[in-house]
Amino acid sequence: MLEQAAGLLAWDEQTYMPPGGSADRARQKAALSGVIHERLTSKDMGRLVRALKKRELSADGVIILRETERNWRRASSIPNDLVREIAHTQSMAIEAWARARQENKFKLLEPWLGKMVCLRQREAECVGYGDVPYDALLDDFEPGAKSRDIDAIFSRLKAKLVPIAEKILGEPQPAPVKAPGKCPLEGQRAFIMQVCTSIGFDLGRGRLDTSPHPFTMGAGNDVRITVRYDECDPTYALFPALHETGHALYEQGFLEKYSGTPLAEAVSAGLHESQSRLWENMVGRGMPFWSFHYPGLQKAFPGLKKTPLPEFYRGINAVRRSFIRTAADEITYNLHIMLRYDVEAAIFGGKIKTGEIPSYWNERFEEYLGIPVPDDARGCLQDIHWAVGSFGYFPTYALGNLYAAQFWAAIRWRVPGLEECIASGDTGPLLGWLRKNVHRHGKRYRAAELLEKATGEKLNEDYFIGYVKEKYGPLYGIRL
Amino acid sequence: MLEQAAGLLAWDEQTYMPPGGSADRARQKAALSGVIHERLTSKDMGRLVRALKKRELSADGVIILRETERNWRRASSIPNDLVREIAHTQSMAIEAWARARQENKFKLLEPWLGKMVCLRQREAECVGYGDVPYDALLDDFEPGAKSRDIDAIFSRLKAKLVPIAEKILGEPQPAPVKAPGKCPLEGQRAFIMQVCTSIGFDLGRGRLDTSPHPFTMGAGNDVRITVRYDECDPTYALFPALHETGHALYEQGFLEKYSGTPLAEAVSAGLHESQSRLWENMVGRGMPFWSFHYPGLQKAFPGLKKTPLPEFYRGINAVRRSFIRTAADEITYNLHIMLRYDVEAAIFGGKIKTGEIPSYWNERFEEYLGIPVPDDARGCLQDIHWAVGSFGYFPTYALGNLYAAQFWAAIRWRVPGLEECIASGDTGPLLGWLRKNVHRHGKRYRAAELLEKATGEKLNEDYFIGYVKEKYGPLYGIRL
Repeated sequence: MLEQAAGLLAWDEQTYMPPGGSADRARQKAALSGVIHERLTSKDMGRLVRALKKRELSADGVIILRETERNWRRASSIPNDLVREIAHTQSMAIEAWARARQENKFKLLEPWLGKMVCLRQREAECVGYGDVPYDALLDDFEPGAKSRDIDAIFSRLKAKLVPIAEKILGEPQPAPVKAPGKCPLEGQRAFIMQVCTSIGFDLGRGRLDTSPHPFTMGAGNDVRITVRYDECDPTYALFPALHETGHALYEQGFLEKYSGTPLAEAVSAGLHESQSRLWENMVGRGMPFWSFHYPGLQKAFPGLKKTPLPEFYRGINAVRRSFIRTAADEITYNLHIMLRYDVEAAIFGGKIKTGEIPSYWNERFEEYLGIPVPDDARGCLQDIHWAVGSFGYFPTYALGNLYAAQFWAAIRWRVPGLEECIASGDTGPLLGWLRKNVHRHGKRYRAAELLEKATGEKLNEDYFIGYVKEKYGPLYGIRL
Repeated sequence: MLEQAAGLLAWDEQTYMPPGGSADRARQKAALSGVIHERLTSKDMGRLVRALKKRELSADGVIILRETERNWRRASSIPNDLVREIAHTQSMAIEAWARARQENKFKLLEPWLGKMVCLRQREAECVGYGDVPYDALLDDFEPGAKSRDIDAIFSRLKAKLVPIAEKILGEPQPAPVKAPGKCPLEGQRAFIMQVCTSIGFDLGRGRLDTSPHPFTMGAGNDVRITVRYDECDPTYALFPALHETGHALYEQGFLEKYSGTPLAEAVSAGLHESQSRLWENMVGRGMPFWSFHYPGLQKAFPGLKKTPLPEFYRGINAVRRSFIRTAADEITYNLHIMLRYDVEAAIFGGKIKTGEIPSYWNERFEEYLGIPVPDDARGCLQDIHWAVGSFGYFPTYALGNLYAAQFWAAIRWRVPGLEECIASGDTGPLLGWLRKNVHRHGKRYRAAELLEKATGEKLNEDYFIGYVKEKYGPLYGIRL
């Protein structure tokens, strides 16, 4: 419950807080996270966990205890002074990162990055790990995941995906979607609201607002998404809105009776991302979806009137060599991620020092994407993740894409008439399948287990590869 | 800081929270207030207070310690089970109150009211008091105030005000302000925003939003006011907006260096109310203010084009016999309050039982206002205060009016050309005086002390009486 309160403070900071409120908000957040950490690591919590472990518990109780113990153990194993030092380094590093990116000077960030890596290594030692320290960090975002498994799956994915990407990138690219004229924000907002609610976003238990970076806040029956708008670009707000709606549908799909317990919490960052990517890409960049919604978009953006649907469809699925991860298409996106994973693995494996990040990054980028990095601002300085110390987060983005493709394959198999449904504006059967097989379980299963239960198979990158081939072959008129 | 976080949760609940969020929000608020109470009453807090009392402290430190000790003593003296029982009774009583008011059945509320009075009596015993238990409740809202003093001032006020009210109410009443046609909310909001910022509300450190009941939330440099709108009524949102802006100007006038300490907190409920009433009534229902702002209002409400300013001025100052406190004019408002104080004093003095509230209320209402109460919904069931157990709050409304009139007299004396300034749209000198003499002190002085320092005199109801006579005599063309 206190975590939900902290979520609201963060949401408000990005949406409605007046500029003068920053310093007080920082203090409010610090006070609240201090209390949360204090309670999580208190002796009472330890006593409670130990007492409950001796009891006979219901199946639900077992899960709740397992997750509570997990959080308590992890939090208690990290000394308070390390927690404080990481928090302090974060705020300094974020400032340094913003300046470094603006001035395109990696050196401004480097010392903070070095310190942050060192602190997170200490954290890994405190928390403990099986094979390598990096696993302790990974485990924070993707419980149960191991570098060993990610290495294996990423190397197979890379071997299959790079040639496909090269083939597609060798073809003439479709024109990006353009709509002359402007679409006032209110009209865009109304269209997005209509689309998001039509796929199941429940405004009785949620909101849509505006913030500098789109995000989702979930607090039980109160799930809020944000987007940002561009008056001249018909898809600028749209795809992030579908992405966040995917996250929100997951949060709104938890069972109310479990509210406030781990059984109404996301399995992992990767699993959460699978839900957002499924709605954004598999559904939202698909032809069935737009054969229903395109007239509405054309109405909102009259500049699209002269763009026929097939041209729009090709435009929103253009594959490009680009420098910025967040703007990448669904093919090259995973390459951006694997590159970041390589860097993280090299740092925490002791292969490189933080000072060597730019050269290591640039080398790999050219290998994966086939173009040289023009500067660090468009290279290793583009993301905030490392400045806040979130090592181990990036791989969950690619895992999310792989999970999504595997779910999607299962759904196409098990939901008869799926594409006709979507083309008629009815995504109910699809959402029903996700609710039943994914959402309602909360943290009952680990991601790998849930995926296998839902799809009948362990994680297999071939579903993503198959999805890409089947979609992009016809789109580009080539054999992949 | 945690109190500020709790303030935001409450603000959001009234403004942006989706309807489905209620149950989770109630749990979040309960968890947070549990933590706040726990910390306030912790042994560490006791140790800290005792240790600091042995030290030599700065003048600021002395105040901070005094207020911290006061809060700690009060909170620690109330047993946890009593705190929980009051909270639980509150939620039950609020439900019962809403039903009782809707069905006009006092009996539905009565048992809860009886229980609440008993619980608050127990609280008063735990907290301790000088003369009478009621003082312990009063002290929660108006530190240092005593029933004895309030009895004295209210009885003098009543003796002077009732004849004035009767005289005015015997005159033909001006027509209420009407504006044929509608004013869309956006236009109203823009006008209100312009007026509120012109008198000093700082949007860099505040917001204006919409909620079912207007209120102000202050959290350091983040002070938010809310109003509600009526498309057909040009003053429905306006005066509450000025009222809340008065509260907000107080909160925004605390010194930033004291943020998070009692030196950046309101002295008392009455002092807070004096600031809202001063801006709402002394400024906002005055001729100088409207001689500047009326053209803007006429622009927003074209239906006012045919209403000349003097007619509008008389309309917004019409005095009426009415049943509902929140809709009362500034003359009869204090009568509504004194009636409620009589009831509270009678209950806590053991003179009547909760079952006798309606008859006691109705008798006194006719005595003060000269009309019979038609039903309890428009009588003793109209306010939520008693259902939530806020006995001792009502008198602070009248104290606020008296403080405001005394400040206003001092300001008129000490700020040369005040009315000309206001008439030229410049309320800067007025705000400057309030900042210097009231706002910046936070809780440094008790209300009585602050009032005396600022105005050179102890609380004296004659300033209010003088204000009323001077304003309403000419307005009604009579000698008061």
